[in-house]
Amino acid sequence: MKTIVIGLGGNALLSPSGRQDVGSEMRNAAKVAAQIARVAATGRYRIIITHGNGPQIGDELSRNMHAGKDVPALPFYIMSSETEAQIGTVLELALRNELAKLGKNIEVAAVLTHVLVDPDDKAFRNPSKPIGPFMRKKSGNGVYRKFQNGYRLVVPSPIPKQILETASIRDLSDKGIVIACGGGGVPVIRKGKRYVGVAGVIDKDRATQLLASAMGADMMLLLTDVDYVYTDYGRKTGMIMEAKSSILKKNLRMFEEGTIRPKVEACIEFVESGKGTAYIGSLEKLELVLEGKSGTRIS
Amino acid sequence: MKTIVIGLGGNALLSPSGRQDVGSEMRNAAKVAAQIARVAATGRYRIIITHGNGPQIGDELSRNMHAGKDVPALPFYIMSSETEAQIGTVLELALRNELAKLGKNIEVAAVLTHVLVDPDDKAFRNPSKPIGPFMRKKSGNGVYRKFQNGYRLVVPSPIPKQILETASIRDLSDKGIVIACGGGGVPVIRKGKRYVGVAGVIDKDRATQLLASAMGADMMLLLTDVDYVYTDYGRKTGMIMEAKSSILKKNLRMFEEGTIRPKVEACIEFVESGKGTAYIGSLEKLELVLEGKSGTRIS
Repeated sequence: MKTIVIGLGGNALLSPSGRQDVGSEMRNAAKVAAQIARVAATGRYRIIITHGNGPQIGDELSRNMHAGKDVPALPFYIMSSETEAQIGTVLELALRNELAKLGKNIEVAAVLTHVLVDPDDKAFRNPSKPIGPFMRKKSGNGVYRKFQNGYRLVVPSPIPKQILETASIRDLSDKGIVIACGGGGVPVIRKGKRYVGVAGVIDKDRATQLLASAMGADMMLLLTDVDYVYTDYGRKTGMIMEAKSSILKKNLRMFEEGTIRPKVEACIEFVESGKGTAYIGSLEKLELVLEGKSGTRIS
Repeated sequence: MKTIVIGLGGNALLSPSGRQDVGSEMRNAAKVAAQIARVAATGRYRIIITHGNGPQIGDELSRNMHAGKDVPALPFYIMSSETEAQIGTVLELALRNELAKLGKNIEVAAVLTHVLVDPDDKAFRNPSKPIGPFMRKKSGNGVYRKFQNGYRLVVPSPIPKQILETASIRDLSDKGIVIACGGGGVPVIRKGKRYVGVAGVIDKDRATQLLASAMGADMMLLLTDVDYVYTDYGRKTGMIMEAKSSILKKNLRMFEEGTIRPKVEACIEFVESGKGTAYIGSLEKLELVLEGKSGTRIS
């Protein structure tokens, strides 16, 4: 049985308008779940699914900002946890429904995931990830950055060091499909022996790689809205079908920083950490990627 | 190894003022987690923890009501899921920290829990559970009931029929402490073969009993703010130290409906479902309850 870790893009569940609500999330989840269910039904794979939470964490922040006077705002790390649940429920129900269509009785479980980060990570001195609505002025605590459309909260994006629930995720993956590392997981630091939640958004691709490496996965699939990695992401030229991680590593600057580069980096890390193969491909072509008929293969 | 299912009252994490925020939740969680960690450290128990979400789901509803204009409100069942995450993170981190103090390396994991209910449950025709803030007028969808202080949303409280993640919870309990069934779990119904989330709050004690019965637990502990069951809950007279479930069943009317009766009923159900023993006792006396030195014992 092969172990595969599948990372779904944070926008995977968005409606075409770019605006998410749970109804359209459910419809989009059904599409990707149908593919995963067919893969699970072959009985050939141990499957772990991770997902982003970019749009959802922004909405969660908005809700907390608005309700501030009547209801205490939640700490940001608790909002992260809530988005794991929101998307976890949507994905789990979608997977159960698609498995039922196939007449397959396979377990599905979503595990709340907490991820250790380094309190000295330079991301904490330089918060860079914009979250939530544009605002006319700074509001409440936190660091705000001025953009053309107004101020926006920026939070740190520290590098994940250890996934606290690795053993539980591994155990569950022997029995069924596991959903984990939602939104990159809830960031925690150590204070002495204690774990303490911190504000931040861990890059989902990095967290997925860390989990895939810790699991000794055979394959890591990062699925997004492109079929292949391109050296020119905007113009979709320079399509890469197959690459050695060592070559990509020397040419990282070819890849756009905000879009495909973090995925390429995560794939390099994964490949170098063990004997697995990494793939970057389309959310709609999961099975083709698995069969080697679509997507960029990094070995 | 004995399997114990511990139900923590929904108010277990509240501050003394009755108002919750994550800071005071953390402090209260540490107290109960210290006891659970010591029990886990004996190595004699498989431990599953459930918890309520009464105060948290109300706040979640408030946040969604306020943010309605800018951000789509979440369906109620997704709010349920979010409270599982909120409290799950608080409890998991508290448990990990108390275990670390004892130098014990024991896994802790929180599993999102979804609970099947009957779409024909009479609760759906008669929503009875008030949630969230008092309002001057009805707002949005849903059923509102008029109270002295204003209108309040009421949601159904259907009877739980099956916990979808039972197998996963059992697997994880072999390896560490499991947090599950938060807030009674996310209610889902079947439409044909599909699972669909529904608005409602499942009674946490009932869900805890269903899980404990399905696990074939040896002991179920429902911990709350009283040391014992009293026949007169308000005046704390008629303390019951030990009772047969058959006797309690004949005298259910003795127990106040809104407070202790659901717990007594859950204990009766649990005892009658297998060969386990049920206990109702104080959150602060977990270890004494386990040793039979405090709490009402129902067999």
